[in-house]
Amino acid sequence: MKLDARVPLVTPFPTSEFHERVERMREAMRFHELDAALLTSEANVEYLSGFWTLFAWNSLSRPWYFILPLDGEPIGVIPEFGETNWRNTSWVERLIVWPSPRPEDEGISLLAKIFRGLRHRFGRIGAELGAETRIGMPVNDFLRLRAEIQPLQMVDATPTFRQVRQIKSPAEVARVAAICRIAGEAFTTLPSYFIAGESERALAQKFQANLMLQGAEKTPYVAMSSGLNGYLSGSTWPSDRSIAEGDVLMIDTGSRLGGYFCDFNRNFAVAPVSDEIRRTQAALVAAAAAGIDAARPGTTMSELFRVQLALLETLGMTCGPVGRFGHGLGKLMTEWPSIKSDDHTVLTAGMIITIEPSVVLSNGRPMLHEEDIVITPDGCRVLTQRAGPDITLLPI
Amino acid sequence: MKLDARVPLVTPFPTSEFHERVERMREAMRFHELDAALLTSEANVEYLSGFWTLFAWNSLSRPWYFILPLDGEPIGVIPEFGETNWRNTSWVERLIVWPSPRPEDEGISLLAKIFRGLRHRFGRIGAELGAETRIGMPVNDFLRLRAEIQPLQMVDATPTFRQVRQIKSPAEVARVAAICRIAGEAFTTLPSYFIAGESERALAQKFQANLMLQGAEKTPYVAMSSGLNGYLSGSTWPSDRSIAEGDVLMIDTGSRLGGYFCDFNRNFAVAPVSDEIRRTQAALVAAAAAGIDAARPGTTMSELFRVQLALLETLGMTCGPVGRFGHGLGKLMTEWPSIKSDDHTVLTAGMIITIEPSVVLSNGRPMLHEEDIVITPDGCRVLTQRAGPDITLLPI
Repeated sequence: MKLDARVPLVTPFPTSEFHERVERMREAMRFHELDAALLTSEANVEYLSGFWTLFAWNSLSRPWYFILPLDGEPIGVIPEFGETNWRNTSWVERLIVWPSPRPEDEGISLLAKIFRGLRHRFGRIGAELGAETRIGMPVNDFLRLRAEIQPLQMVDATPTFRQVRQIKSPAEVARVAAICRIAGEAFTTLPSYFIAGESERALAQKFQANLMLQGAEKTPYVAMSSGLNGYLSGSTWPSDRSIAEGDVLMIDTGSRLGGYFCDFNRNFAVAPVSDEIRRTQAALVAAAAAGIDAARPGTTMSELFRVQLALLETLGMTCGPVGRFGHGLGKLMTEWPSIKSDDHTVLTAGMIITIEPSVVLSNGRPMLHEEDIVITPDGCRVLTQRAGPDITLLPI
Repeated sequence: MKLDARVPLVTPFPTSEFHERVERMREAMRFHELDAALLTSEANVEYLSGFWTLFAWNSLSRPWYFILPLDGEPIGVIPEFGETNWRNTSWVERLIVWPSPRPEDEGISLLAKIFRGLRHRFGRIGAELGAETRIGMPVNDFLRLRAEIQPLQMVDATPTFRQVRQIKSPAEVARVAAICRIAGEAFTTLPSYFIAGESERALAQKFQANLMLQGAEKTPYVAMSSGLNGYLSGSTWPSDRSIAEGDVLMIDTGSRLGGYFCDFNRNFAVAPVSDEIRRTQAALVAAAAAGIDAARPGTTMSELFRVQLALLETLGMTCGPVGRFGHGLGKLMTEWPSIKSDDHTVLTAGMIITIEPSVVLSNGRPMLHEEDIVITPDGCRVLTQRAGPDITLLPI
């Protein structure tokens, strides 16, 4: 097979960008009274240290740690065999390693020693403990560490890193924009290799291959669903079902470039298309437009929910159980905050969010539409190639 | 672009297979004195419930729970909008849902109520807390749940699910074998689309696209490294470095089909190839062969380490800091146990492991080789197309 790949330029973040992130983290840590932050997840370790590893997050055999003290040098605490890769990718010079795997003490005594040796202003160490986090170490290791460092307290650092990561720098926005372009291209070319009668899985394999050839570094999330007069779900694996006449098809992707995600879907149809599907696509696009028009510094997430809901209701649409109409986006496919009625987070310039209205059709099936935007000083910029009100037809 | 995908048949596991897994889990739970197991990770939830979701494990916004009581019906406890997908993919009928996201109570009060209502024989609930686990919920939610169910105790279920998942059924072995074939094909065809002078990234994009077109459902791990007379690492992201004359190139992939992984690498070289590289490739293949020859029921993991090490030392090779010469494989790319000097786990039929000797070259660079095998009643079967002692040459 002839394969030809585009390799989009990913300009490395300058060290100054990491210094700015660290300064903003420390400001937030001072506010939240943390002597240090212990970071263990791909998103947070990459964000602050620049450590660029594929292995650490694909194998649970060994944990990888990054410590940012309020005063003093940041420290990587990682398995010995990762040292070369750390030195080649991170700006952080202080590195402590141990021979791993060593389940009986997988770095824990090292962490305890470091925390005990820090300057203690507040007696509090922050870790990833709160909503929408998953700690990157075994819970028993965390509990052991917590016990070993007493009377130092382990507290939740979620508010700290949320506050910092929520505002994206121009260089971060450029990466999200780049992966949105790549995925947009993959959606645009899909009708050229779609074959009526083929299975969702076959189409998904080609779509993912296409994403890779367009330059995505990863396509961890490619959801697909099809059905006569409406798909079954907005978030499931492709199945062995054949896509045929009268079907509506949804594809959603969270793909990645330079450590940053896009997250948006597109709806397609194989003729004949019912009036309800046509009207619903137009309504979803209109609701997204209402959200996009309202998105600017000072607006709240709940307000973005309200304007989308109002428009859908005006057009006679019924809402479903998804629970929100969009969310934060960046180093993860879904970040806080949520566009929901009780999330009153105020938008500020530099926030990247998805606008994602969804409804339920008369046959009970879901239909949704999603675009990605960045908040600018005087409004917002749409990072995706916006979909039109007419559903895209696939060739029979 | 003309794209053509193979879609390998993935025969669904029959419900009887899940019943057998549950029976084996319950036997292990009785032995470890657990009234119930709380499972939160992709591997364990999929393994026991069959719930087939792409979304749950790609978004941290909502946790997804599966409870297996020692007595009584298993229960899914998931966000409301996942119900259709659960019903379409899992054999488990009892399902409890809540409207999510709801960070103030993300399913925790439901879990507490269920645990309190179970028959309490031991007063112990098992969760994913031990080595090589990451719990699929925020730690603070776990701590809150632990407090709410007192005097019931939360204890580590790692020994329980290790004991069960370690032995693969014939249907599981078939899936690992299928993804090994797919990745083997992708390695075999690589010289046909390699272009001398292109970057590691460009080659990796094509390799991943090829894996998708050959039928892999996911390629979360594609490590690549190249260098004159030796690559820099066995586990890093591809870089922008151009692959040229005299280079040695390593590609390793953990790709997935039907929820099961392969994990193996291949070494390539662009002429001229030094004697040391040729000798080292042959030594690694010979060390792997020694491991494969020794692998049978009754042999220990430490013995597999010893035979590989002895052969490498006989051939004058120097060992590096990887810490082990292979590991378990299945629903994760790396599972327990480890082929290391102090892991005395005894091999039994149905275990799938990788055999992965590694050395350090005279210039300090690493070189490694990996094959995947399943233990059979009288020895083992190699699931990968075994590499030969001569390093594969790439066209200039």
